Amino acid sequence: MSDRGSIEPTNTVELIRRKREGLALSGADVRAFVRGYTDGTIPDYQAAALLMAIYFRGLDGAELIALTDAMLHSGDVLDLSDIPGSKVDKHSTGGVGDKISLHLAPAVAACGVKVPMISGRGLGHTGGTLDKLEAIPGFRVDLTVERFREVLADCGMALIGQTNRLAPADKKLYALRDVTGTVESIPLIAASIMSKKLAEGIDGLVLDVKLGSGAFMKTPERARKLAETLVDIGRRAGKKVSALITDMNQPLGRWVGNAVEVKESLEVLSGRGEPDLVELTLALGAEMLVLGGAARAVEEGRDKIARSLTDGTALARFRRCVELQGGELPESTRGWFAEDSVRVQGGAGYVTAIDAEAVGLAAISLGAGRVRKEDEIDPGTWIWLKKKVGEKVELGEDLAWFSAPRPSPSGRLNGSSVESLSAQVMSQLRTAYTVGPKPPEKRPLVIEVIR
Amino acid sequence: MSDRGSIEPTNTVELIRRKREGLALSGADVRAFVRGYTDGTIPDYQAAALLMAIYFRGLDGAELIALTDAMLHSGDVLDLSDIPGSKVDKHSTGGVGDKISLHLAPAVAACGVKVPMISGRGLGHTGGTLDKLEAIPGFRVDLTVERFREVLADCGMALIGQTNRLAPADKKLYALRDVTGTVESIPLIAASIMSKKLAEGIDGLVLDVKLGSGAFMKTPERARKLAETLVDIGRRAGKKVSALITDMNQPLGRWVGNAVEVKESLEVLSGRGEPDLVELTLALGAEMLVLGGAARAVEEGRDKIARSLTDGTALARFRRCVELQGGELPESTRGWFAEDSVRVQGGAGYVTAIDAEAVGLAAISLGAGRVRKEDEIDPGTWIWLKKKVGEKVELGEDLAWFSAPRPSPSGRLNGSSVESLSAQVMSQLRTAYTVGPKPPEKRPLVIEVIR
Repeated sequence: MSDRGSIEPTNTVELIRRKREGLALSGADVRAFVRGYTDGTIPDYQAAALLMAIYFRGLDGAELIALTDAMLHSGDVLDLSDIPGSKVDKHSTGGVGDKISLHLAPAVAACGVKVPMISGRGLGHTGGTLDKLEAIPGFRVDLTVERFREVLADCGMALIGQTNRLAPADKKLYALRDVTGTVESIPLIAASIMSKKLAEGIDGLVLDVKLGSGAFMKTPERARKLAETLVDIGRRAGKKVSALITDMNQPLGRWVGNAVEVKESLEVLSGRGEPDLVELTLALGAEMLVLGGAARAVEEGRDKIARSLTDGTALARFRRCVELQGGELPESTRGWFAEDSVRVQGGAGYVTAIDAEAVGLAAISLGAGRVRKEDEIDPGTWIWLKKKVGEKVELGEDLAWFSAPRPSPSGRLNGSSVESLSAQVMSQLRTAYTVGPKPPEKRPLVIEVIR
Repeated sequence: MSDRGSIEPTNTVELIRRKREGLALSGADVRAFVRGYTDGTIPDYQAAALLMAIYFRGLDGAELIALTDAMLHSGDVLDLSDIPGSKVDKHSTGGVGDKISLHLAPAVAACGVKVPMISGRGLGHTGGTLDKLEAIPGFRVDLTVERFREVLADCGMALIGQTNRLAPADKKLYALRDVTGTVESIPLIAASIMSKKLAEGIDGLVLDVKLGSGAFMKTPERARKLAETLVDIGRRAGKKVSALITDMNQPLGRWVGNAVEVKESLEVLSGRGEPDLVELTLALGAEMLVLGGAARAVEEGRDKIARSLTDGTALARFRRCVELQGGELPESTRGWFAEDSVRVQGGAGYVTAIDAEAVGLAAISLGAGRVRKEDEIDPGTWIWLKKKVGEKVELGEDLAWFSAPRPSPSGRLNGSSVESLSAQVMSQLRTAYTVGPKPPEKRPLVIEVIR
């Protein structure tokens, strides 16, 4: 029952105990921890104990900056200052049906602000931009830094995955949090996001903090706290940062999957697209243009983004980027999507809610995402939300369709039959929908902006 | 940022998250955790996160019993029912100068209650009974279970160390707590103590919960909470258990070390001995006799224990036990102790406090205990407290003496010179003493009894 740091010369234990007792860690403590954990001299079990203590005790402003900074400097920090123009990125905390990045980046690039975007893969029930991009045949997300610069300089945008050289401490800490029940800590989430984004060499960042049943932040208080924490870290690091808190109480758009989400994104780039997708694109894009100095105010930014979506300039940027990154958009959708479908019906009335998390989990069951990290994705599976919140449903009318489960290696059938998986997804989607006698009150898509 | 147990089928993560959220774990959850951690299928980092969550959230009665029971049944559980008579043990939470077990066990055995005692080694600044016993040439603390039974049946007592086969889960969890800042959790401390003690096959147990500057419990509230928790676990396990909260605001007796503590214990067994040592022996021994049915009330118990110390029966038991366990008490103390000594002086007045923890740390500096687990002990080093709390000190009079540091392999000199170590210990002891103008108020040695 030793509690003597003076007896066992284990400074890491002292550090854990300090945080456990609610005492602040010094900048040197935080740096020593991040360095030691990254180079392996501090073992996983000590890091796990510290992370849980942080979960309970939180981090004050100075600790948070020290942690973000130490993680940021655990690897390379890109310097894009030789590429002319403002560089602004967007980061979302993760939603369902969120294909915004795919058309937002080219729209912003078309308006004169460069978008060096480093994205992630699907996580939990949420989809990932990289998985969607890889549904495009040939598209490479693993560019070298040199090629990333070239693509960015050429078409004003580039879309790649996180490399092992950017913020490796975050990568290692994130993997540990995932298996130790320490994911849901606002300071740890904020430091993780900001350490990666600040390593990108950007001038500004717009954060899309999702709130609702399909988001990791389920309450307005937690969403606001995260948004404020992110903006605060960014400001202290000398970057222009805004955060939009946006609704994730139903999936964005009507399609959930990978190839289908690229398709739905191309519709936005062709001046069509679902109203919610377009609205969020305008809101986020305008904010990026303001931060990047390409619009004086949000209204002007919205107009510019809207124009880029209808005049073909955003679509041209996207096509150029796909080409530069080795991809080829299919001429026809034949073979790009699973063709057989299953229909889901519910009672008559008005759709009052669609549990986005349940839809995300159904998509994963179909193979659109991963249950385990090593799982392969089937890019062609999909869910189509025929009905969205507020829409009327007649008796016997379909609520949604989904691609019939298929016995491919990546089709996630392992063990269960096509029939039982189909029945499971049908039940997941049926219970995701709430249908009531009256139309629900309309909720704003952008709930709050924190600058 | 996955928070979905339904996505990653990692039940341990769910279990950590439940505890983190303050939800109760089921008996099955607790058993699965202890089993998985003991057999290595649950990694250290997950156990560390759970331990830290328990540190913050505590354990309710049912969880605590489940944890103690699972740890207890992670290895062998002794069955001593074929040895006639009541079996009662004593356990102390750890103090400085605490050689009580050495003479308490034979005194209780002499009064007709059997004492199957499984002891520990020094921990932190506190000494350990095993280290003291091993100062007796030849004494074996690693008896087989069969030999342990024989010694117990023959002389009514046996003194051994914990084997790997008793409560191995506790051993593994304790080692992890030690390096993850999760030692100071009352439910974890209580489960650790009781799982080992309940595996001993005893009928009753008396706990000596130390309180004060030299104890792990520094406040009356924490000491009482621990005592109540220990008694509660014991009662639920169907054992007779009492706890005494006793003062550890100065070392017990006048000698701190290993061989010297055996020597001081032999004095108690010869009807002499320091008043505090004798008082605590009577209090603990009387309680053990009552639990073991050899005394109807505490007063009767005290009389019986006192008689065993003066009539030679307790000493005879001790000598017989040493013989049965292969030891030989030296005829002369020559060579048994370090002979050169260093004197420590302070100002004139009355001793108002002796920081027991500082004295324990000074003893460790001299080689009486371990800084690292692999350190060897020098059984001959010692500290003598010439003055104890309440005693008058004249100008220029010695407060304490200690054995001069010597350059033996176990003398803990590594690198520092004899002179610098000597100066360090002198300073440790000088600052351990507080000398004031007036004698302090007398404090009771036994502060509270919880039955």
